[in-house]
Amino acid sequence: MTMTTETLAELVENKDVERLHEWLEEQGALDIADELARLEPHQRPIPFRLLPKDRALAVFEAFDPVHQSELLDALADVDMDELFAGIDADDRARLLDEVPAKVARRLLAGLPNWARRNTNALLGYPEESAGRMMSPRYVSVRSTMSAADALTKVRRAGLRPREVLVLPVTDDQRRLVGVVNLPDLVTASPGTVVDELTSHDTYSIQVDDDQEIAARLIQEADLVALPVVDHEDRLVGVVTVDDAMEIIEQEETEDISRAGGVEPLGVPYLEAGVIQLARKRAVWLVLLGVAAVASVTVIGRYEDRIETASALALFIPLLIGTGGNSGAQAATVVIRALAVGEVRLADVPRILRRELVVGAVLGLMLGVIGFLPVWLFFDLQFAIVISSTLFFICTWATFAGGMLPPIAKRLGIDPAVFSTPVIATLVDATGLLIYFSIAVWVLGI
Amino acid sequence: MTMTTETLAELVENKDVERLHEWLEEQGALDIADELARLEPHQRPIPFRLLPKDRALAVFEAFDPVHQSELLDALADVDMDELFAGIDADDRARLLDEVPAKVARRLLAGLPNWARRNTNALLGYPEESAGRMMSPRYVSVRSTMSAADALTKVRRAGLRPREVLVLPVTDDQRRLVGVVNLPDLVTASPGTVVDELTSHDTYSIQVDDDQEIAARLIQEADLVALPVVDHEDRLVGVVTVDDAMEIIEQEETEDISRAGGVEPLGVPYLEAGVIQLARKRAVWLVLLGVAAVASVTVIGRYEDRIETASALALFIPLLIGTGGNSGAQAATVVIRALAVGEVRLADVPRILRRELVVGAVLGLMLGVIGFLPVWLFFDLQFAIVISSTLFFICTWATFAGGMLPPIAKRLGIDPAVFSTPVIATLVDATGLLIYFSIAVWVLGI
Repeated sequence: MTMTTETLAELVENKDVERLHEWLEEQGALDIADELARLEPHQRPIPFRLLPKDRALAVFEAFDPVHQSELLDALADVDMDELFAGIDADDRARLLDEVPAKVARRLLAGLPNWARRNTNALLGYPEESAGRMMSPRYVSVRSTMSAADALTKVRRAGLRPREVLVLPVTDDQRRLVGVVNLPDLVTASPGTVVDELTSHDTYSIQVDDDQEIAARLIQEADLVALPVVDHEDRLVGVVTVDDAMEIIEQEETEDISRAGGVEPLGVPYLEAGVIQLARKRAVWLVLLGVAAVASVTVIGRYEDRIETASALALFIPLLIGTGGNSGAQAATVVIRALAVGEVRLADVPRILRRELVVGAVLGLMLGVIGFLPVWLFFDLQFAIVISSTLFFICTWATFAGGMLPPIAKRLGIDPAVFSTPVIATLVDATGLLIYFSIAVWVLGI
Repeated sequence: MTMTTETLAELVENKDVERLHEWLEEQGALDIADELARLEPHQRPIPFRLLPKDRALAVFEAFDPVHQSELLDALADVDMDELFAGIDADDRARLLDEVPAKVARRLLAGLPNWARRNTNALLGYPEESAGRMMSPRYVSVRSTMSAADALTKVRRAGLRPREVLVLPVTDDQRRLVGVVNLPDLVTASPGTVVDELTSHDTYSIQVDDDQEIAARLIQEADLVALPVVDHEDRLVGVVTVDDAMEIIEQEETEDISRAGGVEPLGVPYLEAGVIQLARKRAVWLVLLGVAAVASVTVIGRYEDRIETASALALFIPLLIGTGGNSGAQAATVVIRALAVGEVRLADVPRILRRELVVGAVLGLMLGVIGFLPVWLFFDLQFAIVISSTLFFICTWATFAGGMLPPIAKRLGIDPAVFSTPVIATLVDATGLLIYFSIAVWVLGI
């Protein structure tokens, strides 16, 4: 049975417990979380309380921190403690960021000791660091142990299957020396020393490294788990591949938002208030509006010529639009190539040469396409102005769009700030200068 | 020792084998692949041949298919066969897509039988399907086996550790009944029947489902491996989490490219030829240029009024720029929310109400900010025209930007086609209509 949000909302409002039960039994935890997230916050506790304890935990884990926080608000204290203790330590840390300080203190107080220690340790690390994202739930083994002893330690740890797939190997000072894969322990004869099974050229990352570095390393090296060490190389946690995927999705959302000239929302769209939505866009919109005054100034300088040849005004949107589009295309391609590591700053001269040629090729094409219609509807001189302007604007905008992101990166700024709207605004005024200079020269006005 | 591309290129050109050896020994496989990719294709085989066989394979695996193909071209036949047989079957299928048909036949012929069967099986599935991406390297166990027998099967299979973390469980007809985690087999007492350790509410996917569905499922449900079944529910392979991350990166690149009005390149930036780069942008650029003729028409209708009040031309770029920017912001936010599943088509009425209010709030803000400067530099009437135009354009563009992506999705088109450049071009002409209508009415021209 699929069910629209409206129907589920109706069942909840009518407190139709029987049909709610039926529905909950038929759905997976992910789907339930998805549907509950669509209800109003005050409606969510009703179906949630109908779930058996273990499924409730699965649904709760599938929520994002904002929904988790809202649900905790609506539940009684005793439910809260159980849910909070039941989720992973790193998810707990993220949830604590989300709830009001009073609720956070209340939640920490209700935790078992081991869980509180873990959460507190995680909270000591800066936001967006590997330390904040790592899980302290892992089994480390000594390099001098036998495979059989290591397996016994895995059995006794009582962690979830996901948490023991890769085991960090440490020396007597808890310093990381490598990792051993559980399958290798299983396959080895019981007496084998762990050291013989250990991969020593293991990747690891420091607690205060950026979480994105950890995530990209996990992605590039196809890891299941990445050990996290402190400044003395002592093992303090692991970042797992599922966390890495979450980090990457979050970073991609940031990049995509910036590409559209919007600051990332940080919460699901339907959760954000209208004022919050507006605030994330206002700054860029005002900045770009102010920058657009440059184009007002350029046209102001040529106002007399426009009065003489008012047809000049006709092509303003088309010409600056083309400049903005080709600049945005170049910036998009170069920003992405920088983000996924296909190009580096050392490649900048090559990038610029390539974008210059690409811009000229595209500009030539547009100029040729535009020539005939303008000649037919206006005259030959005008066709020359528009075609050559298209060529120069397209070449210049493509070059500028390819140049600005590496400059930003060089200055330590996120290249994604040179988003489509920013590039368009920046090339508008220069494009108009090109246009009017050519017009004055060719038309002799 | 870090080394710039220039120095490495010099060592290669000078055939300085000793220092190349030194350098290769100090670097990890990922770094070597990264540096070699930066060399000219004909330079790459020299350092590559200096690598011991197992490291050469690791470096080769770290290359993307384009570089793999180029390197195979440059190596002798015997090297080729070894490299090709050494990599995973699903990577092999992707590489076969990349090399010329003659080379592909040659490579398939050199494969051991088991590897060729695997690769051929994969090649039967459509591009971008789960079947194409899946690996046939897994160990499946019967639900009636004992845990000890299952572990013996894992030991005998001789697969890599990554490939046996999660084991699909089948019945006597090879139909998938669930999965068992290796740690659970290890922890259970040897006589336990596999069925007792099996999670039966396991996710699985069909061979011809889209690879992105498989990848998103792995991400959302935090899986290490996802079983792939045929239409009779028979197990045919698994998609692993590292493949899922690769798929997601590829899909994100496509989304980001389209957001900038560029078709995805499909190859690394520096590998693409200039003409290829230009071709990926040309279509959109021409389409948008043609669409921009609408704005030429609108201005043409009001040409007389512009001659009367030439200051009207001054604000064209600023006003249509603001419309384009606010429309792009709304489209970006809504497209992303659709892509990650935060909103669905059923939420469209809510989206439209929200975007209408957000647009009005932003428009009001811009109108207020713009009023005073225009009044000071021009006059009161003109300030009224510009401020009210900013308000209406911003409200309309935000509404349109929020509306178009769901319409595209409804029609079965990728919402990302309503990229920033497309939205900007579409709202240009309507924005000008709003502008001139207000100007005619307020200024009485």
